Amino acid sequence: MGKYSLGLDYGTNSVRALIVNVTNGRQVATAVQNYAHGADGVILSGDPNLARQHPADYIESTEAVIKRAVSAARKTAKGFRADQIIGIGVDTTGSTPLPVDAGGNPLALSRRFARDHSAMAWLWKDHTSVAEAEQITQRAARLRPHYLAKCGGTYSSEWFFSKVFHCIRTSPKVAKAAHMWVEIADWIPAMLTGTESPENLTIGVCAAGHKAMYNDDWGGYPDARFLAGLDPALGKLRGRLRPKAKTIASPVGGLTEQWARRTKLAAGVPVAVGAFDAHLGAVGAGIRPGTLVKIIGTSTCDMMVAPTNKPLTNIPGLCGIVNGSILPGYFGLEAGQSAVGDIFNWFVNYICPGGRTAGSHEALTAAAEKIRPGASGLLALDWNNGNRTILVDQRLTGLLLGQTLYTTPGEIYRALIEATAFGALTIINRFEQYGLKVRQVVNCGGIAEKNPLVMQIYADVTGRPMKVSRSAQTCALGAAIAGAVVAGKNTGGHNSFAAAQQAMTGLRRKVYKPDPKAHAVYKQLYQLYRKLHDAFGTPQFQGNLYDVMKRLLVIRSRLRR
Amino acid sequence: MGKYSLGLDYGTNSVRALIVNVTNGRQVATAVQNYAHGADGVILSGDPNLARQHPADYIESTEAVIKRAVSAARKTAKGFRADQIIGIGVDTTGSTPLPVDAGGNPLALSRRFARDHSAMAWLWKDHTSVAEAEQITQRAARLRPHYLAKCGGTYSSEWFFSKVFHCIRTSPKVAKAAHMWVEIADWIPAMLTGTESPENLTIGVCAAGHKAMYNDDWGGYPDARFLAGLDPALGKLRGRLRPKAKTIASPVGGLTEQWARRTKLAAGVPVAVGAFDAHLGAVGAGIRPGTLVKIIGTSTCDMMVAPTNKPLTNIPGLCGIVNGSILPGYFGLEAGQSAVGDIFNWFVNYICPGGRTAGSHEALTAAAEKIRPGASGLLALDWNNGNRTILVDQRLTGLLLGQTLYTTPGEIYRALIEATAFGALTIINRFEQYGLKVRQVVNCGGIAEKNPLVMQIYADVTGRPMKVSRSAQTCALGAAIAGAVVAGKNTGGHNSFAAAQQAMTGLRRKVYKPDPKAHAVYKQLYQLYRKLHDAFGTPQFQGNLYDVMKRLLVIRSRLRR
Repeated sequence: MGKYSLGLDYGTNSVRALIVNVTNGRQVATAVQNYAHGADGVILSGDPNLARQHPADYIESTEAVIKRAVSAARKTAKGFRADQIIGIGVDTTGSTPLPVDAGGNPLALSRRFARDHSAMAWLWKDHTSVAEAEQITQRAARLRPHYLAKCGGTYSSEWFFSKVFHCIRTSPKVAKAAHMWVEIADWIPAMLTGTESPENLTIGVCAAGHKAMYNDDWGGYPDARFLAGLDPALGKLRGRLRPKAKTIASPVGGLTEQWARRTKLAAGVPVAVGAFDAHLGAVGAGIRPGTLVKIIGTSTCDMMVAPTNKPLTNIPGLCGIVNGSILPGYFGLEAGQSAVGDIFNWFVNYICPGGRTAGSHEALTAAAEKIRPGASGLLALDWNNGNRTILVDQRLTGLLLGQTLYTTPGEIYRALIEATAFGALTIINRFEQYGLKVRQVVNCGGIAEKNPLVMQIYADVTGRPMKVSRSAQTCALGAAIAGAVVAGKNTGGHNSFAAAQQAMTGLRRKVYKPDPKAHAVYKQLYQLYRKLHDAFGTPQFQGNLYDVMKRLLVIRSRLRR
Repeated sequence: MGKYSLGLDYGTNSVRALIVNVTNGRQVATAVQNYAHGADGVILSGDPNLARQHPADYIESTEAVIKRAVSAARKTAKGFRADQIIGIGVDTTGSTPLPVDAGGNPLALSRRFARDHSAMAWLWKDHTSVAEAEQITQRAARLRPHYLAKCGGTYSSEWFFSKVFHCIRTSPKVAKAAHMWVEIADWIPAMLTGTESPENLTIGVCAAGHKAMYNDDWGGYPDARFLAGLDPALGKLRGRLRPKAKTIASPVGGLTEQWARRTKLAAGVPVAVGAFDAHLGAVGAGIRPGTLVKIIGTSTCDMMVAPTNKPLTNIPGLCGIVNGSILPGYFGLEAGQSAVGDIFNWFVNYICPGGRTAGSHEALTAAAEKIRPGASGLLALDWNNGNRTILVDQRLTGLLLGQTLYTTPGEIYRALIEATAFGALTIINRFEQYGLKVRQVVNCGGIAEKNPLVMQIYADVTGRPMKVSRSAQTCALGAAIAGAVVAGKNTGGHNSFAAAQQAMTGLRRKVYKPDPKAHAVYKQLYQLYRKLHDAFGTPQFQGNLYDVMKRLLVIRSRLRR
């Protein structure tokens, strides 16, 4: 009789449930449930920076999505029964903190705050807290520079304390009523296991470490004095925050009787500590030392792990380095590109909107495929949405260079893909410069699965084979793997992530291998990319760019001979 | 009874005739005659660099166009008679040299060479002679650097000796049969006056000075030793070239009886020395000291004159400085931008081809008009076709910088217009740095007449009023002015160009005045443009560009407050 694990993946607009056979990784059922509130699950207001979610959605959509997944599994896996699910894992967006009362109940579920945006979950992409983020960054730079060293040098407006701080300033009633603020990555597992009350709450190191400056080296969260200096209320909150964060190897508890009744799963099934979607996505893609997992969508997350038994220097320009944030026993390292698919979408939707014939992704891809590396004479920077890694600078913009009177949209489209590939290579190089050898690259996400041209260009630019994760739902799969691990070997699960990944993850057969000729050209182009990168992106660069256009023309003319 | 002058303007695809009242400048008739040979008058072959014209077209189209213009004038000007035309002027493309026999007859008109491309006129845009141009440049740089100083430092493949040299190398039969090579700017007036034979031929200083290194300071054309070092045949040709070039103030002769019969004009009507279209266009736009004439089309010519009684240093980066090439008694100074309208056309036709709704010049202009200076955050270089003035470098390409995920085609279109305006300002500044004060700017050409947005942006960027020439046919008008001057005051014409221009040229009432607020923003943007210009365009630049994107964002955010 098969054993299964359930992965729950809470995205921006919907939640996905994935039921996976823990022995062979077979994905027997998946279901998606859209959130009921707001616009596609996102609650907006007149302020374009505001983005919230209603916590009722987490509760209601969880029940619905599990029921539908179980029902689907009955159809695909003969004799499947819900009680064959032996563990549950959860991944969510983040930082998405939620204010709760002393019992761990979301304030937005109370009548008093039912319509108050501040009492809802502050979605990851909420940008109301820019001023507070700046203040936190400045104070940390002055007094606690080590806090910043682990998160790329800047504390973001998207992160935990910025949002709490902004609420304190702008919604004092909510702030006062909020006994605690909890990342939804922590609150949802707590909800499933009845451990929401602050004294029972388990927090995950992924959210705490990447978004709330949590680090065991300095005793967990930032010290009370540092926080109180920003606002006394933050100092007080510090006293109520849990002292010790856990990894996804730990169970939060067992599924409550109530949730078991609602979903037909077995009561007491262990639920793993929650983590962010990208981090569990890396797990679902089979991350291990030496493997770079690239999750490629509108932007990218580039994840690696490094053993904690060897010293690891701070790597400048990374988004974060957190012990145990991806796999227990390893530093989790997160890098990323601010825009990838978003750049291609911008070009198609805004600049070259020729409809199905000329300006579709399909038509532009077909045109771009015919162009040899270097033949367009174009070079671009992939900074339309700033640069996350390695420059950590939002105040950068796009650049396109080399256009003539005959430059075509297909050439530009290809140059934009190449630019994101150069950005990807810059991240790989940064990891390796600091001693993390990249032995293989595993890609996942929509672009990795659906766009062979992008994958081939990435292979040709980096000079490395591009592998693609077998699962199309690596985040939910990663969550299910965590579920299988907290279930443990005795109940039919796994006793380690290595064993669970071995059994449950895999790669597609198709590997994009670098073409040596193309790589040779891209090596030259990458030198020019780095020159532009350093000239526009760093204050240190001294020199001129007189050779850039001329060298592009030389590379181009050599191809034509 | 009115007196009239006839301007004949030989373009790439057709010839235009304009009949103008010499007293008041009234343009009583115009006619256009397309050339019969080739594709729109241009003879092509398998070699994409080859572009020729058949000399029969000059003869046949001249007769047709004059007849049609005279016929049209009879309808608009009551009582008009062809014998009221008292002078004729000619402007042509160039350098467009034509091989002729010892009688001055084009070789292509002989049966032997009737179909030989090399025996035809080598059109200005023929690019077959790149290797020869390089060789001439190298030899001049080594032995006669002063030859290059007057033509921007590089002898072009489009110019007289490059083409003759290439013919000597590749078509020895034609080269041997060619007793002489004559610019069509010289050959057409000779044809009308029966002075084609080499000993009677009059050559104009415009073509000779700008395209054949002619200069009275060094005894006319390049010396025989210099030319013979390239090829003995070029040395021999030197001996047959006319010793002294003349300005458009000189008549070549009088209209022959035969041409008078064919056209109904009066025999003996004086025909002025020919010149290039842009130079006579400047005359037709009212050029005089302190006036910059910008002829704006697919590219621009930017023309000024400077008195010859004051010393004039060589101005680096100009296309040419030739005594008398525009107006007699003045140095003619020619600058230019390699692409202006061509860049806008590229964007509309290649990149944003949304048809009539989205991607037309009209729709993009309407969108661009609504954008305030600096509001897009974009900055572009106008180098899609290289840079003529001030860098004199074809091996440069376009650049667009500042794009985000929300950048629109209208914003890019405006940024491209602004880039050409920054290029225009760079030319103005260059003139002024070398002591030529620009007291007014007169624009002519299609874009100046039809695109108020471009003119307003030019005014706002340069901080100077943009005036527009009254005539829409300044080239043909300039030719007619030359006709009125060679006619002289005694026959009802004029005794000077100043007097003729005073009577026959004018400005439109509409003047585009700079908006001080817009100019203030553009001053900041121009600093950033110059930084990019110098960084990518000159080997001297040392520094970084770290501030460029950031300053654009600051300028943009200030506007939004």
